[in-house]
Amino acid sequence: MRILITGGTGFVGRWATAALAAAGHDVYVTSRNFLSMQGCEVIVCDLLRPEGLDVAFARARPEVVLHLAWYVEHGKFWDAVENLDWSAATIRLVSAAEKWGVRRIVCAGTCMEYDLSEGGACNEATTAIRPLSLYAVSKDSIRRIVGKFAADSGMEFVWARLFFLFGPNEHPNRLVSSIVASLLSGRPAKMTSGSQIRDFSDVRDTGEALAALALSKVTGAINIASGQPLRIRDFAEEIRVAAGNVGELRFGALPDRPNEPAAIVADVTRLRDEVGFRPIRTIRERLSETIEWWQGELDLQLKVHMRATYAVSK
Amino acid sequence: MRILITGGTGFVGRWATAALAAAGHDVYVTSRNFLSMQGCEVIVCDLLRPEGLDVAFARARPEVVLHLAWYVEHGKFWDAVENLDWSAATIRLVSAAEKWGVRRIVCAGTCMEYDLSEGGACNEATTAIRPLSLYAVSKDSIRRIVGKFAADSGMEFVWARLFFLFGPNEHPNRLVSSIVASLLSGRPAKMTSGSQIRDFSDVRDTGEALAALALSKVTGAINIASGQPLRIRDFAEEIRVAAGNVGELRFGALPDRPNEPAAIVADVTRLRDEVGFRPIRTIRERLSETIEWWQGELDLQLKVHMRATYAVSK
Repeated sequence: MRILITGGTGFVGRWATAALAAAGHDVYVTSRNFLSMQGCEVIVCDLLRPEGLDVAFARARPEVVLHLAWYVEHGKFWDAVENLDWSAATIRLVSAAEKWGVRRIVCAGTCMEYDLSEGGACNEATTAIRPLSLYAVSKDSIRRIVGKFAADSGMEFVWARLFFLFGPNEHPNRLVSSIVASLLSGRPAKMTSGSQIRDFSDVRDTGEALAALALSKVTGAINIASGQPLRIRDFAEEIRVAAGNVGELRFGALPDRPNEPAAIVADVTRLRDEVGFRPIRTIRERLSETIEWWQGELDLQLKVHMRATYAVSK
Repeated sequence: MRILITGGTGFVGRWATAALAAAGHDVYVTSRNFLSMQGCEVIVCDLLRPEGLDVAFARARPEVVLHLAWYVEHGKFWDAVENLDWSAATIRLVSAAEKWGVRRIVCAGTCMEYDLSEGGACNEATTAIRPLSLYAVSKDSIRRIVGKFAADSGMEFVWARLFFLFGPNEHPNRLVSSIVASLLSGRPAKMTSGSQIRDFSDVRDTGEALAALALSKVTGAINIASGQPLRIRDFAEEIRVAAGNVGELRFGALPDRPNEPAAIVADVTRLRDEVGFRPIRTIRERLSETIEWWQGELDLQLKVHMRATYAVSK
């Protein structure tokens, strides 16, 4: 099957790309940068420019589109004006997909579309929608427009709501990566109270779930998550154990954010029963792998640093 | 005050343009066509192209934007893919407005955003939102995104929900114009049962209300309408009387549309009390003026036709 993936070189997207390529599909990945990726063809184009879309569709002629690209700069994306750029780009993308005869389109949404004040597991059909940030409002609104358009034009439309992620290549300031980096480098990991409950998945499992979803016949909104409620405090302790019982976790060293939801957890019944997806590894196993990956990164950085020092001193 | 109007040459927009120009403001109107309009400067640009926006803002440098442009082709706009183009264009427009330092932006919404199954007068704060067509879903979704963005960035944001309109230059296939044209040309006016209740305004009053709204400090969603429930059947009879008691109305000659809302009427408390707008003329007076306008048009068409016939026969 011919599949076009936007954001297919990103944190989540690379694993969806890898899974679909490994399954023997003709995978095309858009990127603004000239780069190569194993098992797929990279189409260099800018999705924020109208002509970029035609370049991508003309080359890929996809049956299925997996649209993961968005502005996700850590610490900035919640309220950034770039959410408007990507809203407009996504609308244009779905319009182009219809024009190019795409049969099925899967777009990335977010758990932040839900009303999180209730606290229970978020269900696609029964939990109210109440996005608060510009990011979440944009995602929710785009879902409404393109969902209606897809329904009218007979295109299968899927809205994959992602929850919390960790794994290789995570931005170093995010929760898991910052804890791991602190522990491995011997600094105490400064944390909030850690009382919040979140739904964490390894990004490799998320990528594989998205690949399975792209190949399935499931439509509509669907949670892509682990479905396991994890208290941040317990999760951090797991990380410390997986890292070899090293370092120190300082809970309460950072203030809790006001109005932060107490719990954000997914009901994954649809993902499990309709898509038939279950991750092969446990969260604990994935944490170990992630820590190994970070150890490799830190070793590499140390080597680069030492070589630079050696070269200078020589 | 410097005011940029999109759609300012259109059915509604021309009257808003005229009202603001007459009040002495520096009015700039975007248009894809080279044309001139009294009292304002026409900026030739295509809002569907990103560079078109910069052309408009660089020239107008507006404090206030009145965004009325959209795809409104009669009989087609409800489900047209162009709704996606204008959704994307509107998102980009609001983003550009913020970048160019616009203080206040007024966008056109629609009564079709409301849940019309309840039947009461639609109130901005209390009536549920339940858009059904792609047009209405697009408008509603765009309101969510750009409303949130404007709130975050401190730009005054107004969402003017328009109801039913009639007046000069109306598309000849629409309700009032088709009745008038039939009656004036001696053909029976074929109608549905006429039992539906609608809120009709003259487009000149709507334009003036939008102008008053643009100059006011009112923000958020606001109904722009007459607030007068008119049964289509009674309204058609009014038209027949205003046309000089000529012609015949054939109620029931056309089938009622299934699932059509029984009543679509606005609560105009905000428009009346907060904007302070009241139309100077009654609906009946405006109907007479509209019919006069149509008579002039038909006379003109007849003259053109006769001249053409004369020229051919000569």
